[in-house]
Amino acid sequence: MSNTVTERNRVKRLHERGHYDEATIHAILDVQPFCTVGYVFGGAPYVTPSLQWREGNHIYWHGSSASRMLETCQDAQVCVNVTIYDGMVMARSAFHHSVNYRSVMAFGRAFKVTDAVEKVAKLKTFVDKLYPGRWDILRPVMAKEAKATMMLGLELSEVSAKIRSGPPKDDDEDYALPIWAGVIPLRMQTLPAIDDPKLMAGVVAPEHVRTFKVG
Amino acid sequence: MSNTVTERNRVKRLHERGHYDEATIHAILDVQPFCTVGYVFGGAPYVTPSLQWREGNHIYWHGSSASRMLETCQDAQVCVNVTIYDGMVMARSAFHHSVNYRSVMAFGRAFKVTDAVEKVAKLKTFVDKLYPGRWDILRPVMAKEAKATMMLGLELSEVSAKIRSGPPKDDDEDYALPIWAGVIPLRMQTLPAIDDPKLMAGVVAPEHVRTFKVG
Repeated sequence: MSNTVTERNRVKRLHERGHYDEATIHAILDVQPFCTVGYVFGGAPYVTPSLQWREGNHIYWHGSSASRMLETCQDAQVCVNVTIYDGMVMARSAFHHSVNYRSVMAFGRAFKVTDAVEKVAKLKTFVDKLYPGRWDILRPVMAKEAKATMMLGLELSEVSAKIRSGPPKDDDEDYALPIWAGVIPLRMQTLPAIDDPKLMAGVVAPEHVRTFKVG
Repeated sequence: MSNTVTERNRVKRLHERGHYDEATIHAILDVQPFCTVGYVFGGAPYVTPSLQWREGNHIYWHGSSASRMLETCQDAQVCVNVTIYDGMVMARSAFHHSVNYRSVMAFGRAFKVTDAVEKVAKLKTFVDKLYPGRWDILRPVMAKEAKATMMLGLELSEVSAKIRSGPPKDDDEDYALPIWAGVIPLRMQTLPAIDDPKLMAGVVAPEHVRTFKVG
C-alpha cells in the first residue's frame, strides 16, 4: 500500500512545509535512527525514545520482550516521530524565531515480528545499516537472545514529512532594524571512538566505526 | 508539589538507570530544549516535536494558537520526553549494542498560560535561556503576536530521568573475542552562524550567537 493523506497525517499548521512523497520520507528515515514512539496505555499518552530502521515500505523498532512500550504497541495504534534538528533560526522579533528541521510522523497499527528467523534477519539489516559489515564480525546471536528480543513493525501508509529550511522570515518593516538575524546550523557530531577499557590488545576500530554518521 | 514515583513514571526496564531527584531531572531539561509531546486525540496517540523550557518546578512549551497539538493538550494528560543522545555503544554481540543517553519523561495534565503579561514574561525567559540577552535587543512583541501564541505548562510532579553511560557490557566469555567494542560519542554541534542574506550592513552576530550550545 502506498502513502495516503488522511485527517491524521495531513500537515495542518504551515501546510506548505508538508511532504507526502516516498523519496522525501525515506531520506529522513534513512539518516536518523533515533525516534520516539507514542502510544496509549490506560487512556493516557506515553512517548518512549527508541531506534528505527526502514526496510522497503515498513519501519521497525525493537527492544526487550519485557518492555511495556513494545507490549502495549503490539496490534495497537502508534505514532512514530523521527526528527533531525538542522538549525536555530533567529529573527528580528521573538515571534519569528524558529527551528530548521526535517521530521517524519508515521501513524498506524504496529505489528509484531513473530518468526525468529525473520527477526534475526531484520536485526542484521538494522546493525548493517548503522554499521556496514558489522554483523558478520560479531559473536552470533543466541536463540535465547532472539527470544528475549521483541520487534515491532509499522507499514508506511499514513505518513507525513515536515521540513523547514533557510533563513528567518521577518515582517517586511523589521528588515530595516539593526538586529542580527540568521541561522545557527546544528548537526549531530560523532567524536573519535573510545575503546572499551576491556578491549583485547591489538584490536583496532573497523572502518564502520571511523565513518559512522547520523542525522 | 515535589516529584512522586507512581506506576506511570517509575522506570521499569533497567530500573537501575532511573533517577527521580530534582538535580538530575533539571540538569537534563536545562540543556536540551528539544522535546516531543505525546497526547491522545480521538483515542489515538500523537507525538509532536516542540521546544520546552523550565521555570522552577514547571516546564513550558508554546506555538501557534491554531496548533491542534496545543489545543488538544490543554487540560489533558500529556507525556513530554526530552532526550540527549550521548553515544553509540558497540558491543561484541549484537544483543549488547546500546545507546548512551540522558532522558526525561514528564507526565501530567497540561495547563494553558492565559494571562497575556505572564505569557510574554515567560517567552522572555525562554528566549534569554536559549540566547542570553537577546530579548532586549529584539523588536518588542506586539499584542497580536501574544494573542496568536498559545503556551502550555506542566508541573514536574510525576517525572523520571533515565540515563545510560559508559562502555558496553558484554557477556563475560565474550571479552576474550577479538572484536572491536567501545563507544562512538555523539554531541549536537553548532556550526558557525549564517547571516540572514537580508541582514542590514554592518550588523554583527552578538555573543549569544557565537556561544550558543545545546544538549
